[in-house]
Amino acid sequence: LQSKLPDVGVSIFSQMTALAQETGAINLAQGFPDYDPPQALLESLARHARTPGHHQYAPMPGLPRLREAIAAQVARLQPEAPAPDPATEITVTAGATEALYAVLAAVVRPGDEVLVFEPAYDLYGPAIRLQGGVPRYVRLPAPHFRPDWDAVRRVVSARTRLVMVNTPHNPSGAVFTAEDWDALAKLLDGTNALVLSDEVYEHLVFDGAPRLSARQHPALRERSFVLSSFGKTYHATGWKVGYCIAPPALTTEVRRVHQFLTFSVSTPTQHALADALEADPTDAHARGLSGFYQEKRDLFRHLLLDGGWDLLPVPGGYFQLARYDAFSPASDLAFAQFLAREKGVAVVPVSAFYHDGYDEGLIRFCFAKETATLEAAAQRLR
Amino acid sequence: LQSKLPDVGVSIFSQMTALAQETGAINLAQGFPDYDPPQALLESLARHARTPGHHQYAPMPGLPRLREAIAAQVARLQPEAPAPDPATEITVTAGATEALYAVLAAVVRPGDEVLVFEPAYDLYGPAIRLQGGVPRYVRLPAPHFRPDWDAVRRVVSARTRLVMVNTPHNPSGAVFTAEDWDALAKLLDGTNALVLSDEVYEHLVFDGAPRLSARQHPALRERSFVLSSFGKTYHATGWKVGYCIAPPALTTEVRRVHQFLTFSVSTPTQHALADALEADPTDAHARGLSGFYQEKRDLFRHLLLDGGWDLLPVPGGYFQLARYDAFSPASDLAFAQFLAREKGVAVVPVSAFYHDGYDEGLIRFCFAKETATLEAAAQRLR
Ligand SMILES: CSCCC(=O)C(=O)O
Ligand SMILES: CSCCC(=O)C(=O)O
Repeated sequence: LQSKLPDVGVSIFSQMTALAQETGAINLAQGFPDYDPPQALLESLARHARTPGHHQYAPMPGLPRLREAIAAQVARLQPEAPAPDPATEITVTAGATEALYAVLAAVVRPGDEVLVFEPAYDLYGPAIRLQGGVPRYVRLPAPHFRPDWDAVRRVVSARTRLVMVNTPHNPSGAVFTAEDWDALAKLLDGTNALVLSDEVYEHLVFDGAPRLSARQHPALRERSFVLSSFGKTYHATGWKVGYCIAPPALTTEVRRVHQFLTFSVSTPTQHALADALEADPTDAHARGLSGFYQEKRDLFRHLLLDGGWDLLPVPGGYFQLARYDAFSPASDLAFAQFLAREKGVAVVPVSAFYHDGYDEGLIRFCFAKETATLEAAAQRLR
Repeated sequence: LQSKLPDVGVSIFSQMTALAQETGAINLAQGFPDYDPPQALLESLARHARTPGHHQYAPMPGLPRLREAIAAQVARLQPEAPAPDPATEITVTAGATEALYAVLAAVVRPGDEVLVFEPAYDLYGPAIRLQGGVPRYVRLPAPHFRPDWDAVRRVVSARTRLVMVNTPHNPSGAVFTAEDWDALAKLLDGTNALVLSDEVYEHLVFDGAPRLSARQHPALRERSFVLSSFGKTYHATGWKVGYCIAPPALTTEVRRVHQFLTFSVSTPTQHALADALEADPTDAHARGLSGFYQEKRDLFRHLLLDGGWDLLPVPGGYFQLARYDAFSPASDLAFAQFLAREKGVAVVPVSAFYHDGYDEGLIRFCFAKETATLEAAAQRLR
């Protein structure tokens, strides 16, 4: 059996989590919180688990009440954009991961080019290639990881089927500005290219910067698939519920694939998430996330700077990048292994986010952790 | 945007469920029980929903304890086959649907042929085509829906990448016999073709017939992906947990795709299912299913035969096929719509299971329903 993805191994996130378990290292590698979802959400799931009639297939596009609650929240948080229609513009998926794959499978044909900014989440490239698509990579330069729009223009052509955007960006935390969205809109004007905007860290934008979705740009909204994730928003990465918002014609195509990829998503879990949204008409939870994570960022940066680390800026998300040139190991992977084995802290080498293994001596810490975890890790990292 | 699946509409199952809701018809269309999972399983899910630390990503291939429990059960129920290794041969997926799609995405390349027996579950053809594969259809003749192996031989060639088997079969309930497996093994001997064996109704085999998995055939085991579903086994179609068992080299390829399709499956739900398996070391639940469903089959057949219906045999699964020639409507779809609107019972027209809409005047009833539901439906169907 010849593999269709011969170069794809166990993901760096799983590898590093396994190494953390093996070595007893504190796991700041894979991106997930070490705290639980809000207690009321756990109680909701428990209640729906015991509710008769909540255990068979949900409707293929998602429970109506969950889609309505999502639409209402998006309308509140993005008042200047038209509210998404839950019936024709929202699809609930098995995490944003399934949404991402469904979009690619729905629109990318063999030979189509897909623009990917690197560093990029590790699934983008292989998932494009599985559709016969051709990833065209554009590097985001450290330390700010902002797109060089002239470089992007040189790569966009009539063959460009899709541009993949991720804001706030994993691993760098970079956040698209209004100028970035304008530049993208201008570039795509007159083309048929679509946009996949992976906004799973949408609520984690720091220092008062505006949270801007592709949906808020009138020229982009009509060509954009916008993805988000309850896993990130509710500290429940293990529940695997995300969603895709897109205009009706694009949603039709996503659902055509979603129907065959997973068909539907856990019914009791969707009910629990609908409860959480319905119970919070002021979006206190979502609005509180930037403050919640900014405090963690500031604490962790303070501790690491004290320890002499060279830290990159973190405008969003829940990852901190650091340079370690002083140590000059053979590779960032070797350095990450050294940290796990010798210092007791697992991290992710940033070269894992480049298709060609580009290594500029950066590692990534996840700071979605309890204060005590961050303090213990910083202590080990001095 | 030109669709990659222009001919794929809303699935017949969703359509008929919507029609049932609209008309107030009893829904014997979409295949799901109208009763709940066992109470102990619901309590388990409620408990894990409230357990701290059970809410982040499960390991990509599935929770180790769930994979171990699956392996132990398979070893008990298929003692003559080597037990599957949970570490390298079992992958937990977002329902058998995701497993099916992952297998196709992992092994089918553009131009590869995939043998599909029709009638077939509606996702087989489109999911093959999304990989650039070419479905080669072989019709199973009513009323027994057993493969004509000479017809199959004429379609298998060096281009055949995969043979898709579904036993017990949806919609007919036909069950592969030892002779069928032997014929398939002989046919594939010396080829590189793989087998996808969709065994989601594995425990629903009636009248004492043997339950035979592709895994139990030594010549097929090494080339087979075997799929099952907790949704069917535990009356929990809405929980969306299934799994794929395959030899290590095949499992590696499935996981390469699963990692990008969904990455992992709901952590609390996997814990609950592991509890259910661990608490039942004699497999009383799984072993009891054939009796449980045989009783429903017998009751429903008795009621419909009394009402003058022409019923096909049902050796397995939870569907009953019926012929209605006497009424001679324009199509089986028209007849199904008539039944929903005029008689108050929703069913599925069997032409939906053929890529070319082949219509031989058959409809499908789901009898995974409470006695009262079956009685009320039969009353309306007189
Ligand atoms: C699905 S494992 C990866 C989690 C994550 O988003 C990350 O660590 O970047
Ligand atoms: C996922 S909806 C279809 C359910 C089913 O298996 C059937 O009705 O055949």
